[in-house]
Amino acid sequence: MSDLSGVKALVFDVFGTVVDWRTSLINDFSKWGETRGIKADWTALVDGWRAVYAASMDEVRKNPQNGYVILDVLHRRSLEKLVAQFDIKGLTEADLQHLTTGWHRLHGWPDSVAGLTRLKTKYIISPLSNGNVALLTNMAKFAGLPWDLVMSAELFEHYKPDPETYLGAAKLLCLPPEQVMMVAAHNYDLKHAQKHGLKTAFVVRPQEYGPLQKYDFEATGQWDIVAKDFGEIADRMGC
Amino acid sequence: MSDLSGVKALVFDVFGTVVDWRTSLINDFSKWGETRGIKADWTALVDGWRAVYAASMDEVRKNPQNGYVILDVLHRRSLEKLVAQFDIKGLTEADLQHLTTGWHRLHGWPDSVAGLTRLKTKYIISPLSNGNVALLTNMAKFAGLPWDLVMSAELFEHYKPDPETYLGAAKLLCLPPEQVMMVAAHNYDLKHAQKHGLKTAFVVRPQEYGPLQKYDFEATGQWDIVAKDFGEIADRMGC
Repeated sequence: MSDLSGVKALVFDVFGTVVDWRTSLINDFSKWGETRGIKADWTALVDGWRAVYAASMDEVRKNPQNGYVILDVLHRRSLEKLVAQFDIKGLTEADLQHLTTGWHRLHGWPDSVAGLTRLKTKYIISPLSNGNVALLTNMAKFAGLPWDLVMSAELFEHYKPDPETYLGAAKLLCLPPEQVMMVAAHNYDLKHAQKHGLKTAFVVRPQEYGPLQKYDFEATGQWDIVAKDFGEIADRMGC
Repeated sequence: MSDLSGVKALVFDVFGTVVDWRTSLINDFSKWGETRGIKADWTALVDGWRAVYAASMDEVRKNPQNGYVILDVLHRRSLEKLVAQFDIKGLTEADLQHLTTGWHRLHGWPDSVAGLTRLKTKYIISPLSNGNVALLTNMAKFAGLPWDLVMSAELFEHYKPDPETYLGAAKLLCLPPEQVMMVAAHNYDLKHAQKHGLKTAFVVRPQEYGPLQKYDFEATGQWDIVAKDFGEIADRMGC
């Protein structure tokens, strides 16, 4: 078993790990669509939106000459393409803004707030997410996530899994990487965190992608903790 | 009266505005000095330390070729000079580290936590301090400051009152400057915040420097709010 006694801070992937983006967005948009009288296959829109997420960040990564672009802007650009593709009619500028900031109104998984609250008693807890600072801050207020601070790819102008994000978080906390633990439902995120010396905790979120989930049903690396939920991580971390 | 209905976030100067650094440090060091058997005029050390604060940041500002240096490091450098100057004997490396991180163990003014807690119900609240991120995060846990996020000069690699700090905070929040209110016990900080379009709230802290206080006994500018404590700011902001 790994020695975790040196860990001082836990940093969290957010989309899928802390919050259930898919159910939250589908419910939010379906309800809103009815009130607003906009017809669309919201489930398909949400799944399509997430499907282009990685590619939208790769665009930023491959074009450093254009500067860093925050996730809210990438989300908006992708949405405009999807609206055209799905032929959704009648959306105003305010509607597009409302849909884009849907990513600020995500609910935690049932165990998230309770687990974070326990972990916060003994450790520094922070997101380490590709979401921009404003998105993560608004989401924390909406979902009651009790972060000590908000760390985002935006602060480092690099998206995960670029090394600048993991090492930048440790640097901001003035901690060596081995005193920081990355918590994620995604094996690839932990693989990169571990490569840069962070401790790792995998939490399984088999419903993240609904019927579309294809991987991350189980740990595929040697992570320091493998847990079924945040409560189990709190148990393991002595909270 | 100013229209404050557009304000979405309040950002706070911290040393002197939110926390009573002088009393906290004097008490912390006096108690520790006794246990540790180190004799020193701790009040003089604390006052001397704060007296070189502005100059230490000016050094960073005037020497951009050396890169940004966080406040913990500036505090440590100043401490080493003061220890020599005051001829304090017997300090180990661990002692110097303990004294330096005294700035992480500051207590709020009596109204701070209650006022922030009220303001947090309706607004985003964050420090906007020259303290580095780790210092502010540790202090928040120590003093129970319920920040939504932690913004520091470190994130912008510029100390207040450089424009990058005020404008950088608004940018991270994705808000226009006029939707952000700077709260400070220092007229000079508010003067710069106002120049860059932020709303301003002055809170009087006439005991910040103890018997050494020379100014900031009253508002010297046209601030949007002038208050005796954070409770009055919360009243004015409708919380």
